[in-house]
Amino acid sequence: MKILTGTLTELQQQVTTRQQTVAQNPAVQTTVQKILADVKLNGDKALLAYNATFDDVAISDLRVPQAQINAAMADLSPKLLAALTLAKKNITSFHQLEMSQGFIDSPYPGVIRGQKLTPLAAVGLYVPGGTAAYPSTILMTAIPAKLAGVKKIVMVTPPQAKGLNPAVLAAAKLAGVDEIYQVGGAQAIGALTYGTESIPKVDKILGPGNRYVAEAKKQVFGDVAIDMIAGPSEIGIIADDSADPVRVAADLLSQAEHDPNARAMLVTTSPALADAVSKAVDSQLLSLPRKAIAQAAITNQGFIAIVPDVASAFCLMNTIAPEHLEIQLPNPITYLNEIHNAGSVFLGENAAEPVGDYVAGPNHVFPTAGSARFFSPLGVYDFVKRTQFIQYSAAALATQADAIVTLAQTEGLDGHAEAILKRITR
Amino acid sequence: MKILTGTLTELQQQVTTRQQTVAQNPAVQTTVQKILADVKLNGDKALLAYNATFDDVAISDLRVPQAQINAAMADLSPKLLAALTLAKKNITSFHQLEMSQGFIDSPYPGVIRGQKLTPLAAVGLYVPGGTAAYPSTILMTAIPAKLAGVKKIVMVTPPQAKGLNPAVLAAAKLAGVDEIYQVGGAQAIGALTYGTESIPKVDKILGPGNRYVAEAKKQVFGDVAIDMIAGPSEIGIIADDSADPVRVAADLLSQAEHDPNARAMLVTTSPALADAVSKAVDSQLLSLPRKAIAQAAITNQGFIAIVPDVASAFCLMNTIAPEHLEIQLPNPITYLNEIHNAGSVFLGENAAEPVGDYVAGPNHVFPTAGSARFFSPLGVYDFVKRTQFIQYSAAALATQADAIVTLAQTEGLDGHAEAILKRITR
Repeated sequence: MKILTGTLTELQQQVTTRQQTVAQNPAVQTTVQKILADVKLNGDKALLAYNATFDDVAISDLRVPQAQINAAMADLSPKLLAALTLAKKNITSFHQLEMSQGFIDSPYPGVIRGQKLTPLAAVGLYVPGGTAAYPSTILMTAIPAKLAGVKKIVMVTPPQAKGLNPAVLAAAKLAGVDEIYQVGGAQAIGALTYGTESIPKVDKILGPGNRYVAEAKKQVFGDVAIDMIAGPSEIGIIADDSADPVRVAADLLSQAEHDPNARAMLVTTSPALADAVSKAVDSQLLSLPRKAIAQAAITNQGFIAIVPDVASAFCLMNTIAPEHLEIQLPNPITYLNEIHNAGSVFLGENAAEPVGDYVAGPNHVFPTAGSARFFSPLGVYDFVKRTQFIQYSAAALATQADAIVTLAQTEGLDGHAEAILKRITR
Repeated sequence: MKILTGTLTELQQQVTTRQQTVAQNPAVQTTVQKILADVKLNGDKALLAYNATFDDVAISDLRVPQAQINAAMADLSPKLLAALTLAKKNITSFHQLEMSQGFIDSPYPGVIRGQKLTPLAAVGLYVPGGTAAYPSTILMTAIPAKLAGVKKIVMVTPPQAKGLNPAVLAAAKLAGVDEIYQVGGAQAIGALTYGTESIPKVDKILGPGNRYVAEAKKQVFGDVAIDMIAGPSEIGIIADDSADPVRVAADLLSQAEHDPNARAMLVTTSPALADAVSKAVDSQLLSLPRKAIAQAAITNQGFIAIVPDVASAFCLMNTIAPEHLEIQLPNPITYLNEIHNAGSVFLGENAAEPVGDYVAGPNHVFPTAGSARFFSPLGVYDFVKRTQFIQYSAAALATQADAIVTLAQTEGLDGHAEAILKRITR
């Protein structure tokens, strides 16, 4: 692997320059504009045409029949069912801790004010096609929606010539997905935003996709809510000479195998560990089924940065703001406050990143490309909205009327002032 | 005012058709793409050129000097200072109730999992120029940011030939804004996203603006977080024959005066009230300083819908999802659960919308154009992000390893399985 050295500032520049961003692409923007307009105007007819053109699949009914979903569930191997069931149990118990409540308050006599939470009525989950159709991701997105109280959970996924993956259908049923439709790309985002004859309009669209899906989500933002723009997977590991190079290498490769542009990054205080991990990566790559992808990722984006001390390691990692961050140091939990920017943190030698991907219970949908600076993991909070309320007695209004009128008049909004004056001078 | 009647379905269609949406405009999209690229490449130089071209203001220093801000604060009238101070106090005490905490949990022996909250490091507040530069909005955006723990609060606002409004500068100081820059439009959004020589890159951009600002926010989404796409102001009022037509009319006009496309909407069970409100609107319009704007809004977008019962009124209003919703019915708080989609609710005859605009304490930045279906009022939660963490003992990992490996292999991710197998078979 590439070894980076230098001052902290130099290292920060190097990692920032290497950082993936979702670049603007005018050709993609224009194509997506046209697809969205077409879906808005022509509905299902447009969707079926795109299925034929882009996915080379001719289907007459976009919706996956319930019988097919039930059959997929019935055919699930007991071993896979047990694993999905354990995952569901732990995801549920973790996400229950994220549920919050409204409040009500009376700061002055005669004044009531508060906030209530309401679940979104309908949400759309975008599930990418092909090998990237992960049953685990369906659990991670649908379970928090269900816990939040969303009544209609709609899933869209690109049609497959050989039929949809039964494990995906089974996971959808287990997680509480209500309806599944076979359509992908920007056209699926358009369908969920505007509604078609078959597909209901939803309030929020979640889930990763290719650059057409990402661009479509940006364009529809405001007509519908979206989660975030997802990029290639990332893992950052902070380790010292107490870490096991074999485990560190395996964890780097577990993300590298996702995508040729995935980022596998080690920041260490130990030149010896750097050397051992680099060798272990090369050796473990040899036997990896997804070797070609992982090798490309390691070459394109992978690096090991050597820093003088642990404080520098955290400083550099906060600049990177990785999707996944492993802390392979003694007493890892004591460093929690040093972490400002990361989607999820894996503490110590046993908390391999895949533990969090599948069974620990926290979500596995995280911000990428440095956006852990401002985005959060997917959670129950993504599926609720808030509404405020106030109530005033006549006496309470009288005591604050002067301040309201002063502010309204300062802002040149006499109609606002009048609404108060009409109440207190009559 | 226009009176709408018909079945509930007919009324829903009529109000939906009238609903404002932020329409795609390819010319605006292209202009904004160019401006953003220019700012990214040329920094301050581009900003100064846009100030000269778009705002006809030639300034050499984008930052507003601290001395000018302090002077604005010192010159504030005691009456306005008292009003802003009351508003700040109530906004602070309400938003403190929105603050939330992380959690830690141990669902199995040897397993620790949890979530921590971290404030965003830096945020940018966009404050529109001209008459729409509202001191109250600065309190509403900066105070929650400060409470959340944001270290750097940056404000941008278009330059003014006659200098910035002192009340705006004073409100910024009172609310805890750290830096103020004179630049507006899409170029200001670009500056906050990418950073320039003068203006720091931020993590999230908030605040309303014209269609160039709205389009720029959509285009930078993902490189930075944004709040929502704001449209013209809206008020919906549900009232029966117990309501005072003079108050109802005044409240409709208090929103109509914001914008020629503002929406003032009454849904009532009482034809007599409909008639009386319509007359009162016409009569109150005569003496309103912003008569031209309010008259245009009432003509373009205003309506009174007559429904057979209160249940229909709520059903119709949930379809509209208004920014502000007044309930002028007896025992208004008992209807709170009937409200699914609204930014803020004003209960009873004394809770005029301007009470919430200025002093009650809840926020006044709300979703518009039906987006209360999925967006929330601005709050402390907009200024924090979440990070998850897990820790496993070797024994805990051993008990769940089988499920992890099964799921990883099902998804074709053998590198994920290897990261676990390397830990339990050595």
